[in-house]
Amino acid sequence: MPNLPPLSMPFNPAGIALDRRQGLSRQLYQALRLRVLDGRLASGTRLPASRDLASALGISRNSVVRAYDQLYAEGFIEGRVGDGTYVAQLAQASTPEKKLSTNSSTGLPTALSTNWLDLPVNSSSKVIHSGGFSRIEKHHLPRPPSGPPRAFRVGVPAFDLFPFEVWAKLNAAFWRKPDLQQLCYGDPAGDARLRGMIAAYLRSSRGMQCTAEQIVITSGAQQGISLCAQLLVEPGDGVAIENPGYRAAGHAFAVAGAKLHGVAVDSDGIDCSAMAQLSDCRVAYVTPSHQYPTGVVMSLARRLELLAWAERVGGWIVEDDYDGEYRYTGAPLAPLAALDRQGRVLYVGTFGKVAFPALRLGYLVLPPALVDAFAQRRAVDVRHSEVSTQAVMAEFMAAGHFQRHIRRMRRAALSRRNCLLEGWPTVAGVGQLPAVSAGLHLTVAVDSIAREQQLIAQAADVDVEINGLSSYWLPDSTTPMDQRAGLVLGFAAVPEPAIKAALSRLRQAWRD
Amino acid sequence: MPNLPPLSMPFNPAGIALDRRQGLSRQLYQALRLRVLDGRLASGTRLPASRDLASALGISRNSVVRAYDQLYAEGFIEGRVGDGTYVAQLAQASTPEKKLSTNSSTGLPTALSTNWLDLPVNSSSKVIHSGGFSRIEKHHLPRPPSGPPRAFRVGVPAFDLFPFEVWAKLNAAFWRKPDLQQLCYGDPAGDARLRGMIAAYLRSSRGMQCTAEQIVITSGAQQGISLCAQLLVEPGDGVAIENPGYRAAGHAFAVAGAKLHGVAVDSDGIDCSAMAQLSDCRVAYVTPSHQYPTGVVMSLARRLELLAWAERVGGWIVEDDYDGEYRYTGAPLAPLAALDRQGRVLYVGTFGKVAFPALRLGYLVLPPALVDAFAQRRAVDVRHSEVSTQAVMAEFMAAGHFQRHIRRMRRAALSRRNCLLEGWPTVAGVGQLPAVSAGLHLTVAVDSIAREQQLIAQAADVDVEINGLSSYWLPDSTTPMDQRAGLVLGFAAVPEPAIKAALSRLRQAWRD
Repeated sequence: MPNLPPLSMPFNPAGIALDRRQGLSRQLYQALRLRVLDGRLASGTRLPASRDLASALGISRNSVVRAYDQLYAEGFIEGRVGDGTYVAQLAQASTPEKKLSTNSSTGLPTALSTNWLDLPVNSSSKVIHSGGFSRIEKHHLPRPPSGPPRAFRVGVPAFDLFPFEVWAKLNAAFWRKPDLQQLCYGDPAGDARLRGMIAAYLRSSRGMQCTAEQIVITSGAQQGISLCAQLLVEPGDGVAIENPGYRAAGHAFAVAGAKLHGVAVDSDGIDCSAMAQLSDCRVAYVTPSHQYPTGVVMSLARRLELLAWAERVGGWIVEDDYDGEYRYTGAPLAPLAALDRQGRVLYVGTFGKVAFPALRLGYLVLPPALVDAFAQRRAVDVRHSEVSTQAVMAEFMAAGHFQRHIRRMRRAALSRRNCLLEGWPTVAGVGQLPAVSAGLHLTVAVDSIAREQQLIAQAADVDVEINGLSSYWLPDSTTPMDQRAGLVLGFAAVPEPAIKAALSRLRQAWRD
Repeated sequence: MPNLPPLSMPFNPAGIALDRRQGLSRQLYQALRLRVLDGRLASGTRLPASRDLASALGISRNSVVRAYDQLYAEGFIEGRVGDGTYVAQLAQASTPEKKLSTNSSTGLPTALSTNWLDLPVNSSSKVIHSGGFSRIEKHHLPRPPSGPPRAFRVGVPAFDLFPFEVWAKLNAAFWRKPDLQQLCYGDPAGDARLRGMIAAYLRSSRGMQCTAEQIVITSGAQQGISLCAQLLVEPGDGVAIENPGYRAAGHAFAVAGAKLHGVAVDSDGIDCSAMAQLSDCRVAYVTPSHQYPTGVVMSLARRLELLAWAERVGGWIVEDDYDGEYRYTGAPLAPLAALDRQGRVLYVGTFGKVAFPALRLGYLVLPPALVDAFAQRRAVDVRHSEVSTQAVMAEFMAAGHFQRHIRRMRRAALSRRNCLLEGWPTVAGVGQLPAVSAGLHLTVAVDSIAREQQLIAQAADVDVEINGLSSYWLPDSTTPMDQRAGLVLGFAAVPEPAIKAALSRLRQAWRD
């Protein structure tokens, strides 16, 4: 073995007392983590080499290496090749140890079905050989409505305001002088420049301490969710999803073989006490910024509770921040991914709600330990995303168009929201419109399913598109049918005059 | 114990046999060093985390860490923060220990093997929960070489000839006056106009009696293959693939849980009599137009035999026609999809070999009964492909650019092929170049693996890229090692002067 040069001891380990009867690396990890969090180990402090610290503490180097690995994985320390290990720059928000209450709740039984209204559970989407021919089991994803945008389509931003002229110029510029190297096979994790731009954007706009290396470019949020499902779920595993919730996410998990557990959403977000009862469940899919479709913003207490759940069960949280750019009142809460100190959160982002849906460009922000597995899987699935969309978006961001456009889109969505709130009629059987502090849609309760369906049909008759809240529930929900009724209204898809005209037609249709 | 991050096992340590009576870390160091020197561990290969390798070999992590330290100190490996440890780029001059062995295996689980040389079989790519934490099993898809195109890169067409100015104009035109309806969510099967154009093209150029409704647009051929794998294969099902063959297809089937059966390829194509012996196998993946990588064109008799097999077992044939546009002599044979009368063939097509790889645009032609299942699965995976690439390609085809470009590309590939054939040196241990009637590459036999590796290393020294045929075989092949040796040469990637210059350098390098 080579004799390694002696290294310095840049901090005093004297205060670290380890109990030899217990796991030494765990204790060391905790002692160092505490010192980072309370500032005794300041950001930028160089840590001793593992062999030196082991020698100083009289423990095996192995224990030190494991403790360092854990701290590294959690972002408390960082290393530079040939230059040792340093205490990382941390946001000073620590993670309180939240105690979970243990309310009673039963795991929801699940049904197997292939109706488009009935989410198939725990069966994969396959063309299966059966006898001499085949039968097809499949998942019918409810297709988003097609046709030109109209009031009150859900999930569509004010993309009539997108600077298409700028986008056209950037596209033409890319194609006129392409770098031939870029046109060969690329990195399955995505365009390096775009990954850097996204990381910088999330650091400044969301307070996420992420690096470009943690970003994996996807073909929209749906591919991000689907990748999480494929990589985190074994057939038969339980997965907690919000109920009501985003059905296309449920489909992606079901296709991966998940047993879906619909978990209720209260005014703080997903019910973590109900999740604690799900013994087979170590993956949760949530929309904390603006719950889809109810619009609830997950409270900080609930966010911390959810993170504590993931830590306790050794699980993963898929955080879908599909419309997090749209916040109208108050300071936005930190995403789970920014609060996460355990590398338990997989963050799903998309450009579809800022630019337009058909762009199919999104990204994942992953715990560093997961990046390689996701990139590899993506390579097997699709190699990588189309090159020009990524390069053009990177340039769009670098030139400042993206930030300007977000501000423009936020103003437009706010104005269209106000237009809907001001012109909304009082209708029998329909509750009061909620305050809308975020997102691109709102949900209002209706007395019964029958009334919900009637209102939607009357609206459709006058060319107004309204989604029924009842269609966002899992088919096996225990919530009484009439309590599932409501109207989901997207307010950003069309300009104010079209909103006003639609409201006028609605008032007429609903008066009859 | 802290929960340690799940890590990869990017190469197969199966051949590493350690004698427990002697210093383990020294032996490991020597074994790894030998593999780096003789090329089994190629530059850029990611090494497993020390804990994973220790666990795989049944030795202490300390021993692995010491071996890694030594290799690091000597420059054989290098680390990147947050990105693991990699085999370093070595000057290929010093190659003292050149012998390749066919060591016996220590019986490590196949699932752990993820080396680019060793195809993992029958295990899915998952982040799996194990106890309180997780481990990652994954498939390392060999990444296609990056950097600017050079002689004799495989899989790259003459895309320096692509009419980028036309493409730029069509892109700009699309974006300047976008149809807002097109920018909402679209059909998961793809742009209707493009599907029609592709069907018309295949009817006229390939004699396929297909309709637009049978076409599903994909993000390149890889996604087409991957979709077939996901939808046709149940975990544990046998899948017949050509051996040697296209490894990335094998990976896609393995990720879907397939048990891969490598089937020999003779001068007529895949050996159907061997397939008849595979009782668990009802899916076959083949490249009939130009077998990848051997270049064999499947005979008509063999095509019919293969179709009869599929009909008999009630199975499916995935026909990858990756470079079917390139045919230089004689009339092209009808694709299996054109001969199929039973709806048993799924045809995989791509624009990557006519335009350029990073376009990521391809398609499936499916038996009508399968279209809906594939479109639905695609919707769950990704919703649909990016809109402008599809619309621009449709316009490119409608305006006649596509057909003109194919003719240009075929002429260019033929001229570049001739340039290679004419200038190819006579080299000891290398067989005669074959007649090349199709495709973008050729394969020539070499006497032994050692000679193959030597020639490739010498070529690399003079900046010439050559793939070894040995890397296209499944790891469990029964064909003797030396019979797997050969050189795979892509001839289309660079223009004639660059080919001539590369041949001149090769003659010099191989003479010494």
